[in-house]
Amino acid sequence: MNSNAFRNLSYGVYVLSVWDGERPTGCTVNSVMQITSDPATIAVSVNHNNYTNQCIDKSGKFAVSVLGEKITPIVIGTFGFHSGKDKDKFAKVPYEIKDGMPVVKEACAYITCEVINKMETDTHTVFLGKVKDADILSDDEPMTYAYYHKVIKGKSPKNAPTYIAEENGK
Amino acid sequence: MNSNAFRNLSYGVYVLSVWDGERPTGCTVNSVMQITSDPATIAVSVNHNNYTNQCIDKSGKFAVSVLGEKITPIVIGTFGFHSGKDKDKFAKVPYEIKDGMPVVKEACAYITCEVINKMETDTHTVFLGKVKDADILSDDEPMTYAYYHKVIKGKSPKNAPTYIAEENGK
Repeated sequence: MNSNAFRNLSYGVYVLSVWDGERPTGCTVNSVMQITSDPATIAVSVNHNNYTNQCIDKSGKFAVSVLGEKITPIVIGTFGFHSGKDKDKFAKVPYEIKDGMPVVKEACAYITCEVINKMETDTHTVFLGKVKDADILSDDEPMTYAYYHKVIKGKSPKNAPTYIAEENGK
Repeated sequence: MNSNAFRNLSYGVYVLSVWDGERPTGCTVNSVMQITSDPATIAVSVNHNNYTNQCIDKSGKFAVSVLGEKITPIVIGTFGFHSGKDKDKFAKVPYEIKDGMPVVKEACAYITCEVINKMETDTHTVFLGKVKDADILSDDEPMTYAYYHKVIKGKSPKNAPTYIAEENGK
């Protein structure tokens, strides 16, 4: 098996966000896809080790902020390489409340969901969310994961399904 | 809810293929994502009405061919706008057998899987597949769904989760 083949799958770059009971938190993810159109549902995959996972499990809700190519790079870093358990990630990243959920203000679009099902794997949970609200916030071009790697020279966080040990020099 | 926001999610373009017992069949999909890296698993979403869905359910296996930007356009049309129940889709699309599965010869990469779990929704099944084999077949750039729409001016098949009635003039 040549695992480099997985790099040929295409994704976007998103902030998956939620309330932890007291404050908003979230993490950078690439694994988001629409599953059905009527009713609209989307699936997101998030690592068991991400604080966001347990907060979604507890609250039964989540929001997806679609990051565009012009996003301030610190947004990806803040949400991708720290744990929301230790750090108030939204402290320095402006957000708006949409449908009661925290959404990255600078995002090009957002989707809020109610969890209606989930599928467990060894390391990740796939949450299925029924869309409650969605809108476009700017005309910025949605960032693809390929753009993130090629243009921004970004790396994969350790908890990403696309993480490759060598890439991070470990 | 502004469903145009869903267009800001990023995808690739793939042929999801399988044996129906006698011959190879498949359909064009955009909803494929890696879920875990170790062991490697991927999720694919496919409409209940697609013949491919019941064939995957029956055989417990599937293959994903990653289409590149230089793919012969007829491949997308053949697999996206006909039913494999009525048409031998692979009759005019060259394929290779990889790990016992039919794979589009012109694809830039392929992944073969064994189904280990599934999640049902109103209209689509999300199959979770454990990767058995994967490789890169060419250096063609993987086609994104945005590229398919913008450059190839492609439409969404009716069974796609991203289908929007107006787009197809219905």
